[in-house]
Amino acid sequence: MRNQQFAIRPTAPAQALDELHMIHFLDDTNQTLTTPSQLLWDFYDRSWPEFTTDQRVSQQLHNLMATPDRDGADFLSQHDAVPVTVFYNLALQRLGFTVGDDFDLADPLVAMAKIQLPVSDHQAANFTMAELKQAWYLLLTTHTKNGQSFLDHLTTHGYFAPFLHDAAVTKPLIFNGKAQAVFDTTQLIREVVYVESPQDTDHDGKRDLLKAEILRPAETAAGLKVPVLYTASPYNQGTNDEAGDQMMHDVNVPLTPQEPNHLTREDVLAEPDTTPIPAPRPVTTSTTTATESFARESSYTLNDYFLARGFAIVYAAGIGTLDSDGLRTTGDPEETTSTIAIIEWLAGNRTAFTSREATQAIPAWWSNHAIAMTGRSYLGTLATAAATTGVAGLKTVISEAAISNWYDYYRDGGLVVAPGGFPGEDADVLAEETFSRQLQAGDYHRIQAKWQADLAAITSGQDRTTGSYNRFWDARNYLKNAKNIKADLLLVHGLNDWNVKPRNVNNLWNAVRDLPVTKKLILHQGQHIYINAFRSIDYTDIVNLWLTHELLDVDNQAETLLPNVIIQDNVQPETWHSYEDWDAPTNPVTTLNLQPEELVATTNAPLKAAVSFNDQLPDAQYQAYTHDVTSWQRDLLNDDSPLKGHRLRFKSAVLTKDQVLDGKPTITLEVAVNQPVGLLSFQLVDYGEAKRLGVSPTPLRVSLDEGFHWREDSLREFQTTAPTPWKMITKGHRNLQNRTNAYQIDELKPNQFYRLRVTLQPTHYRLLAGHQLGLVIYATDFGMTVRGNQDLQYSINLEHAALELPHLAE
Amino acid sequence: MRNQQFAIRPTAPAQALDELHMIHFLDDTNQTLTTPSQLLWDFYDRSWPEFTTDQRVSQQLHNLMATPDRDGADFLSQHDAVPVTVFYNLALQRLGFTVGDDFDLADPLVAMAKIQLPVSDHQAANFTMAELKQAWYLLLTTHTKNGQSFLDHLTTHGYFAPFLHDAAVTKPLIFNGKAQAVFDTTQLIREVVYVESPQDTDHDGKRDLLKAEILRPAETAAGLKVPVLYTASPYNQGTNDEAGDQMMHDVNVPLTPQEPNHLTREDVLAEPDTTPIPAPRPVTTSTTTATESFARESSYTLNDYFLARGFAIVYAAGIGTLDSDGLRTTGDPEETTSTIAIIEWLAGNRTAFTSREATQAIPAWWSNHAIAMTGRSYLGTLATAAATTGVAGLKTVISEAAISNWYDYYRDGGLVVAPGGFPGEDADVLAEETFSRQLQAGDYHRIQAKWQADLAAITSGQDRTTGSYNRFWDARNYLKNAKNIKADLLLVHGLNDWNVKPRNVNNLWNAVRDLPVTKKLILHQGQHIYINAFRSIDYTDIVNLWLTHELLDVDNQAETLLPNVIIQDNVQPETWHSYEDWDAPTNPVTTLNLQPEELVATTNAPLKAAVSFNDQLPDAQYQAYTHDVTSWQRDLLNDDSPLKGHRLRFKSAVLTKDQVLDGKPTITLEVAVNQPVGLLSFQLVDYGEAKRLGVSPTPLRVSLDEGFHWREDSLREFQTTAPTPWKMITKGHRNLQNRTNAYQIDELKPNQFYRLRVTLQPTHYRLLAGHQLGLVIYATDFGMTVRGNQDLQYSINLEHAALELPHLAE
Repeated sequence: MRNQQFAIRPTAPAQALDELHMIHFLDDTNQTLTTPSQLLWDFYDRSWPEFTTDQRVSQQLHNLMATPDRDGADFLSQHDAVPVTVFYNLALQRLGFTVGDDFDLADPLVAMAKIQLPVSDHQAANFTMAELKQAWYLLLTTHTKNGQSFLDHLTTHGYFAPFLHDAAVTKPLIFNGKAQAVFDTTQLIREVVYVESPQDTDHDGKRDLLKAEILRPAETAAGLKVPVLYTASPYNQGTNDEAGDQMMHDVNVPLTPQEPNHLTREDVLAEPDTTPIPAPRPVTTSTTTATESFARESSYTLNDYFLARGFAIVYAAGIGTLDSDGLRTTGDPEETTSTIAIIEWLAGNRTAFTSREATQAIPAWWSNHAIAMTGRSYLGTLATAAATTGVAGLKTVISEAAISNWYDYYRDGGLVVAPGGFPGEDADVLAEETFSRQLQAGDYHRIQAKWQADLAAITSGQDRTTGSYNRFWDARNYLKNAKNIKADLLLVHGLNDWNVKPRNVNNLWNAVRDLPVTKKLILHQGQHIYINAFRSIDYTDIVNLWLTHELLDVDNQAETLLPNVIIQDNVQPETWHSYEDWDAPTNPVTTLNLQPEELVATTNAPLKAAVSFNDQLPDAQYQAYTHDVTSWQRDLLNDDSPLKGHRLRFKSAVLTKDQVLDGKPTITLEVAVNQPVGLLSFQLVDYGEAKRLGVSPTPLRVSLDEGFHWREDSLREFQTTAPTPWKMITKGHRNLQNRTNAYQIDELKPNQFYRLRVTLQPTHYRLLAGHQLGLVIYATDFGMTVRGNQDLQYSINLEHAALELPHLAE
Repeated sequence: MRNQQFAIRPTAPAQALDELHMIHFLDDTNQTLTTPSQLLWDFYDRSWPEFTTDQRVSQQLHNLMATPDRDGADFLSQHDAVPVTVFYNLALQRLGFTVGDDFDLADPLVAMAKIQLPVSDHQAANFTMAELKQAWYLLLTTHTKNGQSFLDHLTTHGYFAPFLHDAAVTKPLIFNGKAQAVFDTTQLIREVVYVESPQDTDHDGKRDLLKAEILRPAETAAGLKVPVLYTASPYNQGTNDEAGDQMMHDVNVPLTPQEPNHLTREDVLAEPDTTPIPAPRPVTTSTTTATESFARESSYTLNDYFLARGFAIVYAAGIGTLDSDGLRTTGDPEETTSTIAIIEWLAGNRTAFTSREATQAIPAWWSNHAIAMTGRSYLGTLATAAATTGVAGLKTVISEAAISNWYDYYRDGGLVVAPGGFPGEDADVLAEETFSRQLQAGDYHRIQAKWQADLAAITSGQDRTTGSYNRFWDARNYLKNAKNIKADLLLVHGLNDWNVKPRNVNNLWNAVRDLPVTKKLILHQGQHIYINAFRSIDYTDIVNLWLTHELLDVDNQAETLLPNVIIQDNVQPETWHSYEDWDAPTNPVTTLNLQPEELVATTNAPLKAAVSFNDQLPDAQYQAYTHDVTSWQRDLLNDDSPLKGHRLRFKSAVLTKDQVLDGKPTITLEVAVNQPVGLLSFQLVDYGEAKRLGVSPTPLRVSLDEGFHWREDSLREFQTTAPTPWKMITKGHRNLQNRTNAYQIDELKPNQFYRLRVTLQPTHYRLLAGHQLGLVIYATDFGMTVRGNQDLQYSINLEHAALELPHLAE
C-alpha cells in the first residue's frame, strides 16, 4: 500500500512539545526520565488506554519486535538508546503493518519510504531525547495501515476518554492543527426546530417553516459556542420512490425536428419572482429549549466524525419535505432561499420556532456563527447553491459531486441527456421523489392540489420536447451567481462521475478561479461517490484541517499546506498528485485530424473524404440494448462489434510516450444528416489492454470508529480490476439543431453539411505509452439520450474535422 | 410485501392489560377516560416520545388520515367511537405503510389480510374500550413495514428512554414474552478476562489462557445477574489473510489411483488424547474488577440487539488467537475444550485471571449461569461443538450455517471437495488464517517453531491424496457426540449454502430428532448468510422469544408457539412455511428410471443401454473454466452447451402438478471408467424459465436501530431476479474408489461396471407444474473437486440406474 497525507501540519519543535503536553503525552512525571528508552517506554505506556496496569503494557511491548531477534520490552529495558530503526520497527507494528508482509525488521526505513510514511529528523543512528519527542509527535500524526492517524487510532481505543469530562481540558482541543475527539458522543443533545423562511412556496399566505434537526455537544449547554456543519438533504426525511419510478419518462421516443428560432441569451434569462412574501409570524415568547427531539437521523459519516470533535451538525431537507412547509422545486431560487434560511438562523439572522404551529421562537444560541455546508450530489449541490448567494455566516462549503447548473445535469447541447444510470429521470421526477410531505397522508391531503399544479408546471418548464436551455433552466443555473461567492470552497468530484458529470465542477472551478476566496479541488477516479475513509489519502484529516481553519479560526496553514488541486492518478493505484490548477487556460493544446479510422497529426494534409454511419439498428438488437446498456457500451467501443456501420471510430498511432490530458477536448467537424433532425455523440477512449482502476472502491472490511465507541465508517480503496481492452475517457452530445448554442434552434436541412464544434466533458487522464487514443462518433447514446432508433444516416466531412486536446506541458 | 410473524405470543386479556400497565401505556391517568377515541388519542399521545408537548402530538395525528376524507386529529376529536377501519387506517400509517401504494383508506382490512398483519378481535364495527386496549397491545407486537415490531420501532424513537434509569422499573422487562430494550447501551461495561482452559495446546507446560471480551449492562454492577450470549469466533481478533491465501492448495491436479484397503469403522476412530494436562495456575487473590478494557469488538448485530435488552455478550476467539495461548487445530476436541472453557467460567466452574500473567482470579460474578451460544459459520460450528459436550450452563445454542462434521465441509465421498467459492482451502489453510497470534510479531517469534510443526501435522492428517475419512476427520466429527447434547437447539441454514453444505445441518437434525431436548430448525433460501433483519420473517423476535424462555426462564410458550421447522418457500417471495419435520423418515419416495436424456417413471421397463461421456476438455476450454466457474456451471446445465459429450443430462416429462422434494435424493447406477481412477458428480436441476429468488438478499437501504441511538442492522430481503432457464437444486460427488463408504478404498478395474449408490445433499424444493426435473451426471466439478482434465471415459449402464426422490405427501 501507499499512504499519502496532505494534512500533516509542519510544527515548530517548541509548539510540538506544547501540544504533547496538552494531550498528556508529556507531563511532570516523564520530564524526569533520563534515557530515550525510558521515555519511549513511557510513551507506549500511555498509548494503551485499554489497560489499567503497567504489567499489561509491558506484555504488549513483549508482543512487538524491536529488532529481528529482540522484542520491544526486552530491548527497551536493556538499552538506554533508541535506534531509529527500533523506533520505526515498533512504530510500524503499532500502525498495523505486518512484519514480513509489509516490512522487514532488518530495515524498517525501506518500508517507511515505500509506504510514504514520514520519518522524523535525526542527527545520528539513535534518537536524542529531543528528537524522540518530535518523532513521537510526528508518529501521532502518521496514518496507520487502516487510514487513520495514529492519534485517531488511539482515540478509538479510548485515549481521550479521560478528557471528555475533565474540566481542565480546554475545548475544542487542537492538535497538529486539527480538532480532536474530546467530546462525549453519548451525551449529544438532539433537538428539532422550525426555521421560518422568507418564502411561501405552498401559497398558503404564510411563510414556509422548515424542519431542522440539530445535534450538538453537551458542552454547549454550559455555554460553549460551537461551529456548525450543515447538510441540506432533500432525501433525509424519506423519499417517494415508487411515485418517482412511475413518473420516469419514456426515452424510447424519436428525436423530433424543431422550428428554428432566433432566441438570444436575454430571451432565456430567468425572471425574478416578484410575488410579495407574507409577513413573518409574530413571536410571542422565546426559549432556549426545544420541544422536539428525534430518533436516528439520516447521517453522513463525515459529520459523525466531527460530532466527536466539537462541531454541531444540522440536517434540513427543505421546502416540500416531511414535517416542513412548501413544495419541491428542483434547483430553483426558492430552493436556494430555503437552503440558506437555515444558515441565516444559525448565524443569528432569522427566526425559528419550536414547532410548525408555535409562536415561541428559539435562537441558535449555541452557535459560534461560523457555518460550513457538507454533502454529496444533491446535498453538495445545495451547498454550492448556498455559496452563490454570499449568505453571511457561511464560511466554507465542501461540495462533493455537486451540480453547478441543472441544465448540465439533465440536458446537454439541446438534448435531453440523462444522468448516467437514470434514463428518463428529469427535474419533475426528482421533485416528486423528494416531495416527502406526501409520506404523511394527512399533510398530503391538504396540499395535494397545489402540489399537482406546481409539479405540472415543472414538467412543462423542463421541456423535454426541445431539450433546449430556457428560462426554466436559467433559473437553475448557479454559475450565473458564482461571482457572489464569499465562502471558501473545497470541491470534490469523480472524474468517472457520469451521474453528475465533470462539467459541473469544471464550470464552477473556472468561474471562481479569479475570485478572492480560497478554493481547493480534489478529483478522484471514482463515480458518484464520496471519499471519506479511503486508505491512500487522508481526506478526513484534510477536511479537519480545513474546517478547523475555516470555522475555529485556527491559523493552521490550511490555505497554503493543501495543494490547490489534488488529482488521483488513473494508472497507479493509491497515488494522488498535487497541481496548481486544473483545465488551466494556459494548457498547451494538441490538435489531431481525422482520417478514415485514424487520428493523425496536423502535419498530415487534411483528407478530402466523407464517412458515414446509420443510427438505425435491427429491432432485436435495439431492444436488447435498451435493456442492457453495458452491452451497448461494450459493443460501441470494441474492435469486433455488431455496431460496425452504426458508429465511426478513429484511433491514433500507438503512443510513444505518456501524455496527460487536462481540460476539455473539443471536436470540430462538418456533418450532414438525411432528415431534418439529428444528434451526434462522442466518446474519447483509451485503447490498450491494461489493468485499470475500478471506478467503484472496494470495501476493505475494516470499520473505522469516528470517535470512541461511536459510529463507524467503512474503509475503502480503488483497486485495479482484471485487464480491459479500453476505457472511456470522456464523452459529449449535441443536437444538430443546436449548433450555435443550447438555447437557439438552428435550421437543419437534410443532406446539407453544417459545421459543428462540440466541447466534451472535461477530464484529466494519463494516456500511457503503448496505448492508442480513440475517438468514437455515434448518435444514440443508449445510456443517456432518447433512443428513437430512427433511420438517420450521418455523414462527416473529414476534411474539416479536428480533435483538440488540452494537456499538461511535458 | 408480506409479513410473517411466528413470535407473537397469544396473551390472555388480563395479562395484556398488566403488560400495558408495565410499559406505561395504561396508568391511573388514562383509566378515567370514557370514550374509545379519547383512549386511542391518549395511546398515540404516548407513542411519540420525541415530543414534549401535546400540541405536537395533535399535529402528528393531523398528519395521519383516519378515513379517506378526515385526518386522525379531526376524526378522533369529533367522534366517541373508534371504528375498526379507522383504527387500522391510523395503525397502517404508523407502521410505515403508504396510503395508495400499500393500502386503501376505504378498506384497510383488505391490506391487513394481504400483508398478513393480525387484526384484533372485535364484536362490532367499532372497538369497545376493552377491545381497543387489546387491539393496541396486539399492534405493539405487530411488525412495521421495516421488519420491526411497532414496540421496537417506538423503542428506536426513545419510548423506553425514561425506563433506563427508573428504579421503579423491574429489569429485565418482559413484554409479550420477549425482553425489552430498557438497558442503557451508553453505559455498558466492557472488560477482558483470561480464562484458564484445561489444555496445553502450545506445549509450554502451562494451561492455555484464553482471552474473553465481555460487554454487560451497568445494572450488573448494582447486583443484577444477567444471562449471557457467548459467541466463539476464531476470526474476531484478526486473521492472516495473506498467509492463508499463500497456503491455498492447487486443485488443478489429477485424481490419482489408490491402493485398495479394507479399513473398518474401528480403524478410523480417533484416538483420545491422553497427554496429562498441566496443573492449574495457583490463584493468589480474587477480584471483581478487570484491569483491561477494549475498543470496538468484532460484533454480531443479533448480539447488539440483546445488549440493549439486558443480556451480557461474550466474545472469545479461542486457542491460538491473538492475546490467547495455544495453537489452532481446526475443529478437533482441543478446540472444543477451548470453546467450552469460557462457558465453564461463565457458569462458575472454571478460573479466569485478569491478565495472561496475573495470578489474580476474576469470577463471572454477574452471570446468572444461563448461557446461550450464537454465531454463523465457524462461529455456529463451535456452538454445535460445545453443545455436543453437554457442558453445564449451556442452555441453548443458535447454530447458523454450522458445520456438524468437518469431513462434510472439506471432503465428500472419498474426494477432496472444497466449500463453494474456496477451491484449494483445507483444514490447514483455515488453521493458518485464524492463527492470529501471528499478528503480534513478538508473540509469534516465541511460538513460531511449535506452530509450524503442528501446522505440518494438520496438512499431513487432512490427507489430500486420498480424500478418505480417517482418524484426523473422525476427531472432527461432532455428530459422534450428538447424543450428549443437553442444550436446546435453534438451527438455521441456507438451502443454497454451498459453502457449509446442507448435509451439515441435516445430519445434526436427524441425529437429535429423538433426543429429549427442544429443537427448532429454520431453512432459508439463501447461501451462507444470516437472516437477522429480514422484512418478511420476525427472526429477531423468534430469537428473543427463544432466549427469554431459555435464559430468563420465562414461560412464554416458545417451545410450542414456534413451529419445529420453518422453511422459506423457493417460489413465492416473502413466504415461510411451518412443518413438523424436515427429511422425515416417513416421507414418501418417488423413483425415476434413467433413459437416454430422460427421467421416466418406473412403470416404463428398464432400458438396456449404456451412455457415456469423456471428462477431458480442450485445453483452452479447460483453462477458461478454471478461471470462470460461473461459465462452467452455466454450460453444464444449458441446453446448447460446449460441454455436450462431457456430461449426461436426463430430463423428466413436464410436470403436471407441483411437487415438493423434501430430504435426500439418491442415485443408484452402474458405472465403468477406462482407467483405474474416477469420480462422478451429480446435479439435480429445476428446468423451466421462471423468475426465481436470488440467493443473496437485497439490502433495502433501511437501517434498524438495535436499541435507542445504538448500533444498527441493515434491512434485507430475498427478491426475485430476472427470469432464468434453470436452477440447481442439489448436488453430490463420489470417488469411484470409495463405493462402499468414505474410509474404505475399493478396487477399480478399468472398463468394469460397478454398482454405485450416491446420496445427494438434502434439500427442500418446490418444483412447479410446467417445469422439468433434470439430472446431470458429470465428473470434474470446477467449483469443488480437483480438476485434473484427465482422459477419463465414463459409461453408465442405464438398465440399473434410478433416482429416488423423497418428497412431501400430497
